[in-house]
Amino acid sequence: MTKTYIGIDIGGTNIKVGLFDSPISLLSKASVPTQADMGPAVVVERIANAAMDLLTQAKLGTEQIEAIGIGTPGPADYPNGVLFRLANMPKFENTPLRDMISAKLGNRPAVLENDANVACWGEFAMGAGKEIEDMVFFTLGTGIGGGIVSRGELITGADYNAAELGHVILYPDGRLCGCGQKGCVEAYASANSTAARANEALQNGEKSSLYQPFTKNGEVTSKEVFDHAANGDAVAIDIVEGTAKALATLCVNMLHTTEPARIVFSGGMIAAGDALLSRIKRYFNEYVWTIKSETIEICFATLGEDTGIIGAASLAKHMLSENH
Amino acid sequence: MTKTYIGIDIGGTNIKVGLFDSPISLLSKASVPTQADMGPAVVVERIANAAMDLLTQAKLGTEQIEAIGIGTPGPADYPNGVLFRLANMPKFENTPLRDMISAKLGNRPAVLENDANVACWGEFAMGAGKEIEDMVFFTLGTGIGGGIVSRGELITGADYNAAELGHVILYPDGRLCGCGQKGCVEAYASANSTAARANEALQNGEKSSLYQPFTKNGEVTSKEVFDHAANGDAVAIDIVEGTAKALATLCVNMLHTTEPARIVFSGGMIAAGDALLSRIKRYFNEYVWTIKSETIEICFATLGEDTGIIGAASLAKHMLSENH
Repeated sequence: MTKTYIGIDIGGTNIKVGLFDSPISLLSKASVPTQADMGPAVVVERIANAAMDLLTQAKLGTEQIEAIGIGTPGPADYPNGVLFRLANMPKFENTPLRDMISAKLGNRPAVLENDANVACWGEFAMGAGKEIEDMVFFTLGTGIGGGIVSRGELITGADYNAAELGHVILYPDGRLCGCGQKGCVEAYASANSTAARANEALQNGEKSSLYQPFTKNGEVTSKEVFDHAANGDAVAIDIVEGTAKALATLCVNMLHTTEPARIVFSGGMIAAGDALLSRIKRYFNEYVWTIKSETIEICFATLGEDTGIIGAASLAKHMLSENH
Repeated sequence: MTKTYIGIDIGGTNIKVGLFDSPISLLSKASVPTQADMGPAVVVERIANAAMDLLTQAKLGTEQIEAIGIGTPGPADYPNGVLFRLANMPKFENTPLRDMISAKLGNRPAVLENDANVACWGEFAMGAGKEIEDMVFFTLGTGIGGGIVSRGELITGADYNAAELGHVILYPDGRLCGCGQKGCVEAYASANSTAARANEALQNGEKSSLYQPFTKNGEVTSKEVFDHAANGDAVAIDIVEGTAKALATLCVNMLHTTEPARIVFSGGMIAAGDALLSRIKRYFNEYVWTIKSETIEICFATLGEDTGIIGAASLAKHMLSENH
């Protein structure tokens, strides 16, 4: 009998559903609009229909599903598969999402996990983290998400909210973060904060080629900051260096905490490519201790846009395996 | 047959040896001077003799030893039980200490681990960490040592040097640390750095009641700083607050990293008592995020001076158990 896995990636705008074979190769995928305002019953129906369509097209039924993995924004009661409330999905308060989805898919076993942890697991099992046992993972987007794998297992923490690495404080009494803390790395080095620091510099009247897009659109994006840095604009370079310094310091701190073999960056901002990665590596080497030489690798994620569904399917397989 | 465990705590000045029963209750203990300049063979002989004396007094032989645990300063090749070189014990370069000790004690199974990890494990299994699964541990002494337990296991890292938590950078471009980094928490909040910051303030001419011991001895100790803070000296209070702020920030960062249920402080500086602990808790509550309420406990270690031998024996039992 063909064994398959379903991976589900719940985003604020779209929900992706993937059908995978047993080695977690993608067989087929679909995307449906989230439309969270329709409420949990409708959204779950839509997810289940998308999964059923993928199965039917592959001439399979729910009895061929070994496990279902679901990645969701937090916070949530992950062990019990219940969402508390999501910032952009108010109707999903206290929704037993895992069991609702399972019930629509033949009551097959399902796992619910934080989206950053799911993406971390995807890269660990199937992407940039292959062949190692200890990894740290960052997503650089609106905020900074994190994931930690130690000895081949995700670190989930005492209350299932470990690896909120965007909220590690790097600059005490520094910039206010959306979480209520001051000086979080997320308040400096996410894509949004990189853009915000540039916008503030421009508002303060610093001379920069970024004035053109700033004047046109009322603000600049992190992509524009990296583009103008590449063209030699001093203000843009200073902002980009600040982002790289913060991320490099965070890498040093993770080395001294869980000591990964590899640190993997993902998310929209890695489109900046080597202009970001080489700077992070340079500052890491400048900042790290000298009493012991380190072989830790710092690199980019490799799975791309399907990370969420790959990670969800792969994590479901792992969590329900005997070896776990 | 009586099952016993041997715990060995190797310090620069003294080596402690403990004999434990199967629930890891201390049966008897001994202490011998390290005298590292005599070289590994002599030191190992002395350790083995101390252990044999304890066994003989208990009318037991090496065949009753289930496992031997050894805590040592690092760095070392812990999985293979080999010391690289210890700062104060140059003759111990590349010494296969674990197997040398085992050979003298009936070839019984032995485990070598970093002394901070050993102490962490002792508190986790037998002290302040009982009944929880996730703990972070700090020693506040000459430096700051660390240990992390996640889901009931020590985090050892890809290269067995995880949890070097004294070298987490809290103040980028800050005070130079002995490790070569700038701004490490150890450079601010260890007992030595707390005293050093006070001595620097006095050298800078700040008015303080600490001038009396400073003038008498050429320097002040961290104990004197806490004593004078308790008596209301403004400079001493400022130094103590700085120590507590750094440690509280480190606690916030560990909450967002491995998310322990409990953070345990140990080491000489916890003699300062509530003057230290209440300040750490106050700053933790001031600094931690507001988007989620936290129930993490911050407390002091409970095992006292026998932590090293208790931790070593307990860890040896754990590492050689089937459940590990």
